[in-house]
Amino acid sequence: MIKVGIVGGTGYTGVELLRILSKHPQVQLVAITSRSEAGLAVADLYPNLRGHVDLRFTVPDHDQLADCDVVFFATPHNVAMQTVPDLIKRGVRIIDLSADFRIRDAELWSRWYGEPHTAPGLLKQAVYGLPEFNRERIRDAQLLAAPGCYPTSVQLGFLPLLENNWVDRSRLIANSASGVSGAGRQAKIDNLFAEVNDSFKAYGVAGHRHLPEIEQGLNDIARETVNLTFVPHLIPIVRGIHSTLYAELTADVSLETIQAAYEERYANEPFVDVLPLGSHPQTRSVKGSNVCRLALHRPQGRNTVVVLAVIDNLVKGASGQAVQCMNIMFGLPEKAGLDIVALLP
Amino acid sequence: MIKVGIVGGTGYTGVELLRILSKHPQVQLVAITSRSEAGLAVADLYPNLRGHVDLRFTVPDHDQLADCDVVFFATPHNVAMQTVPDLIKRGVRIIDLSADFRIRDAELWSRWYGEPHTAPGLLKQAVYGLPEFNRERIRDAQLLAAPGCYPTSVQLGFLPLLENNWVDRSRLIANSASGVSGAGRQAKIDNLFAEVNDSFKAYGVAGHRHLPEIEQGLNDIARETVNLTFVPHLIPIVRGIHSTLYAELTADVSLETIQAAYEERYANEPFVDVLPLGSHPQTRSVKGSNVCRLALHRPQGRNTVVVLAVIDNLVKGASGQAVQCMNIMFGLPEKAGLDIVALLP
Amino acid sequence: MIKVGIVGGTGYTGVELLRILSKHPQVQLVAITSRSEAGLAVADLYPNLRGHVDLRFTVPDHDQLADCDVVFFATPHNVAMQTVPDLIKRGVRIIDLSADFRIRDAELWSRWYGEPHTAPGLLKQAVYGLPEFNRERIRDAQLLAAPGCYPTSVQLGFLPLLENNWVDRSRLIANSASGVSGAGRQAKIDNLFAEVNDSFKAYGVAGHRHLPEIEQGLNDIARETVNLTFVPHLIPIVRGIHSTLYAELTADVSLETIQAAYEERYANEPFVDVLPLGSHPQTRSVKGSNVCRLALHRPQGRNTVVVLAVIDNLVKGASGQAVQCMNIMFGLPEKAGLDIVALLP
Amino acid sequence: MIKVGIVGGTGYTGVELLRILSKHPQVQLVAITSRSEAGLAVADLYPNLRGHVDLRFTVPDHDQLADCDVVFFATPHNVAMQTVPDLIKRGVRIIDLSADFRIRDAELWSRWYGEPHTAPGLLKQAVYGLPEFNRERIRDAQLLAAPGCYPTSVQLGFLPLLENNWVDRSRLIANSASGVSGAGRQAKIDNLFAEVNDSFKAYGVAGHRHLPEIEQGLNDIARETVNLTFVPHLIPIVRGIHSTLYAELTADVSLETIQAAYEERYANEPFVDVLPLGSHPQTRSVKGSNVCRLALHRPQGRNTVVVLAVIDNLVKGASGQAVQCMNIMFGLPEKAGLDIVALLP
Repeated sequence: MIKVGIVGGTGYTGVELLRILSKHPQVQLVAITSRSEAGLAVADLYPNLRGHVDLRFTVPDHDQLADCDVVFFATPHNVAMQTVPDLIKRGVRIIDLSADFRIRDAELWSRWYGEPHTAPGLLKQAVYGLPEFNRERIRDAQLLAAPGCYPTSVQLGFLPLLENNWVDRSRLIANSASGVSGAGRQAKIDNLFAEVNDSFKAYGVAGHRHLPEIEQGLNDIARETVNLTFVPHLIPIVRGIHSTLYAELTADVSLETIQAAYEERYANEPFVDVLPLGSHPQTRSVKGSNVCRLALHRPQGRNTVVVLAVIDNLVKGASGQAVQCMNIMFGLPEKAGLDIVALLP
Repeated sequence: MIKVGIVGGTGYTGVELLRILSKHPQVQLVAITSRSEAGLAVADLYPNLRGHVDLRFTVPDHDQLADCDVVFFATPHNVAMQTVPDLIKRGVRIIDLSADFRIRDAELWSRWYGEPHTAPGLLKQAVYGLPEFNRERIRDAQLLAAPGCYPTSVQLGFLPLLENNWVDRSRLIANSASGVSGAGRQAKIDNLFAEVNDSFKAYGVAGHRHLPEIEQGLNDIARETVNLTFVPHLIPIVRGIHSTLYAELTADVSLETIQAAYEERYANEPFVDVLPLGSHPQTRSVKGSNVCRLALHRPQGRNTVVVLAVIDNLVKGASGQAVQCMNIMFGLPEKAGLDIVALLP
Repeated sequence: MIKVGIVGGTGYTGVELLRILSKHPQVQLVAITSRSEAGLAVADLYPNLRGHVDLRFTVPDHDQLADCDVVFFATPHNVAMQTVPDLIKRGVRIIDLSADFRIRDAELWSRWYGEPHTAPGLLKQAVYGLPEFNRERIRDAQLLAAPGCYPTSVQLGFLPLLENNWVDRSRLIANSASGVSGAGRQAKIDNLFAEVNDSFKAYGVAGHRHLPEIEQGLNDIARETVNLTFVPHLIPIVRGIHSTLYAELTADVSLETIQAAYEERYANEPFVDVLPLGSHPQTRSVKGSNVCRLALHRPQGRNTVVVLAVIDNLVKGASGQAVQCMNIMFGLPEKAGLDIVALLP
Repeated sequence: MIKVGIVGGTGYTGVELLRILSKHPQVQLVAITSRSEAGLAVADLYPNLRGHVDLRFTVPDHDQLADCDVVFFATPHNVAMQTVPDLIKRGVRIIDLSADFRIRDAELWSRWYGEPHTAPGLLKQAVYGLPEFNRERIRDAQLLAAPGCYPTSVQLGFLPLLENNWVDRSRLIANSASGVSGAGRQAKIDNLFAEVNDSFKAYGVAGHRHLPEIEQGLNDIARETVNLTFVPHLIPIVRGIHSTLYAELTADVSLETIQAAYEERYANEPFVDVLPLGSHPQTRSVKGSNVCRLALHRPQGRNTVVVLAVIDNLVKGASGQAVQCMNIMFGLPEKAGLDIVALLP
């Protein structure tokens, strides 16, 4: 059994880790920490866990965490980078769901997050946890940076187009929309039910923190500089991300050829599902599951390819992908604990 | 492996059976029938099942069904009673999720469903599938009538009060509210998103078909005639039933004593969770799971006891409870295939 | 033109007052105060008011308020009672939408609100603003206490039954449900979209602050002591209250007679609409309007009468009713500014 | 008073016409027709109209309609074109909310609607009812084609950019999202609450019927051929359209200059509201109102301009705009009956 610790388990990615890990056949949950809720039974905060998780939140204890095989950080940014260096020294493997180790360039990180990076020395060693692109490096990672939710959907959607060099890399567009759980479990007026329900809006159009992460990822995939316009929107749903991706063809290639390339590229991927041509994936088709579903279109046979990508932001966009990486890191079957059917309706 | 057939799998209880049974360790799905969708891959209708269920809908074939160990009917009422008699003769065990065999009195059934019952001879043999009250009889059932969604929540909520004879049986009230999936997957204007969203209403106040089923069940529990006022409401959510139950105390018994009685009565029930005093269960705490959560109150210390009961109408209120009964009928662990953590948030 | 001031206009009842008053033919908006948002244009906080309201929030200024004909308080409880005494002395008429002056018994108020009442001397003079019961006293009120949202729906629903002395006053039940805007515009985790959406729950079953207000009102109507069990619920909608009321008949009276009594009692009420027998009012049928719709049922012809009552909690349950009272107080047509068709769908 | 008839009033645009016209100071509602609901009181179908509209649905009667000053068609496509020619001959002015007369090229219409156009002779005479572009021609229109909902938002959003010839017309993108009321009040499984809620999807990516309408409109505005990629999405809200528009700058022009051009272009438009730079309009800020709100962005200062446009699909996207056109056609103040504050929250 793999001994697992979770730091910062009171948020939505924390409870989602518990939902998944509590049924994982190879995992023993050792500790879940929260300074603010120390002493509280996890199941008192999240009643869906009653009967499944007996732990109480505890104050973070380095010795206890150091005793784990792997520690997940489900914390806001700027928390993991304080604690991780010590745990790394003590040989623990780390899976960080926050943004702290996603961007390799510390200065770029600072510019977007508005504060200095306090563990820049670890950035080089951190492995970006997108299994479909980075599986080999993930196997041996000691410090894994789980991708953001938007970035996962956008990278998986563009990947085969970029690898095949079929589109104009200078004018990619990602029009994405997320459920409200992506904003986390924080008391903000903007995320109140009465502010969000029965409404829809874009936000962060001038610049969202996921932009540099996505561009870094697309650059890695394309092996050249990519230029992305990224516009996120807020949907009045709890879970789900839908990315509508636009790219302009520069190669003379048919939609059928592109479809075939996507199917082949993802043929052995356990969690990427390329739908038949003409499909329109709904976010609910992946609710609660670790799957990313993709569909391709070429409206009016013109030059623009449209890729539709859906994930559950809390699963493939966060906790599920983190567990998938854990499975790879520990040599377990990649679907262990993740063979979940999406909840529909 | 238990060979399972499903008749009428295009509705919401059908897809929910597939979600559960496709991960059940002891089940082999043999056939799923639908006249209207014969030939279609199940996963084309329900994309959440892609990669989990390979079956196609087929026209019902008695020989194929007769070859199953158990056949589930996930059909509208008045379908099972046409087909079940033949299958019963051929030795198949039946779990009917429709209303056809829930009410023992054929005349009463006819009055509420507006048509004659065509298999009244089987009504006596049918076992009402509420495990918490009827487990012993379920073990040997050949024909099992899975309870309705409202009836499950109301019976589990009132059961210990009635068994202890602590309340006035002549004036029980069940103020229940259901998510829209309870209305099924039928093209009706009343259930359109634009008709239901951002609104709330009661319906069927003059008389809902679940009333006679609930009263029969409460009579069985109380071993005397019970009088219930039942008012269902429609909530703009997909899944979930919340029943707020009112009963007047006739015995001199404290709320703590009642709480203790509930906890003891359900101590060994794998799917009934009595919350601590003062709790308010949310429907989402059981979304996707087979659990019924209960909480007790006695406002202002007056004479009225209020019981709050929540279930997922498609799971404990339908398909999950049906699988629970199957597990009992076939001597399997009662939680097999049902050890699911509710999806929260 | 009536000069109107609003104290505390940043909440939902504040913006709703502005929506209504900005189109009221006899009203001149003079000031809207908010300490926290002083200087901000109202339309920057509430973009729906762009082009309709030019005011900016200002720090409360007693002289400016004293210059108004009427001042509305759209504040949390415990604010109005600090400021009102001075304004009353200076001859301003007050319409308080908060709870400060609804309950005549200062001690009872203290018990439920957990702090002493600082203006008990004004309680006697305060007029409870339920026009359908109290219209004559409202005309001359200098200090008007606008009823709470739940209390409005429950009182209007029970009123004719109690006035006719047809039901058992000792065992009334109000099973109510409210949209989330009733919780106000405060940053609380419990009211986040991701906490509320696709779920339903009861809350405050042990005791909700509207209970003493409702019982006081029902006592006034019945001219005897009334006993109410009141259970509020939270619906994932923005606006709307639905009360399902249960009363036991003690008189030998038919449902048709009761219906006739309701129709007659409310025949001249501009904002109470008694639906035909057999109806099920939806909350959306009153969304944005000042109407209360009622429907009567007597399930199975038994002894329990069920009354369904719907209002928009922000209109007839708060700001609309306050304006209705203002119209009465100033001798204006009662429908002035309130002749609004509900938004459906 | 203008005598108004409405053909096909049972749908959502019909009830919305009634909501607006019943409060319009210059309008007398003469008739509302529906073959299927003839005899039914309008307020029985739409209870929000109780007390506001006394009409009953009637079978369409040409003589009665011919007696009106103006007849609105709130019908599915292919209905107006059957009846309009006769009414035109009899001198009635027509405002058609359906698609029948929006596209000037009968052949193009046929290709997208899959049937021949039966009144091609009227297409030349039909005036496209987008007041912001076509006000002068609307004044004298006898046959007015009210624009579609998506087309209104997209055209208003791109208009100043195209009139100023600042962007590449060959690669415009409109990523739009609509509330479910846009699909009308028809019994379709796809639009059930349980199919739509808590989910999000694109649809009609291969080709939506609004594409040729939008391209025709943009061509008219640009006076050259425009190429648009249009991807509509379905939001789980009742009302509202949000269009996120992408255009590539070809001119050397700053965002501030563009903003100034938008503000100037729409300065005298009563129903277009250009928000300050950096804004993100929510659909709820226009719910129930006839306003289109626009906001401009230029992410990262790169070459792509992003325009955000929101309308209420049933108001500015249908019935409100139709009434705005009526006001222009009959020389009334353009805001008559339309000075409505959006319902927020």
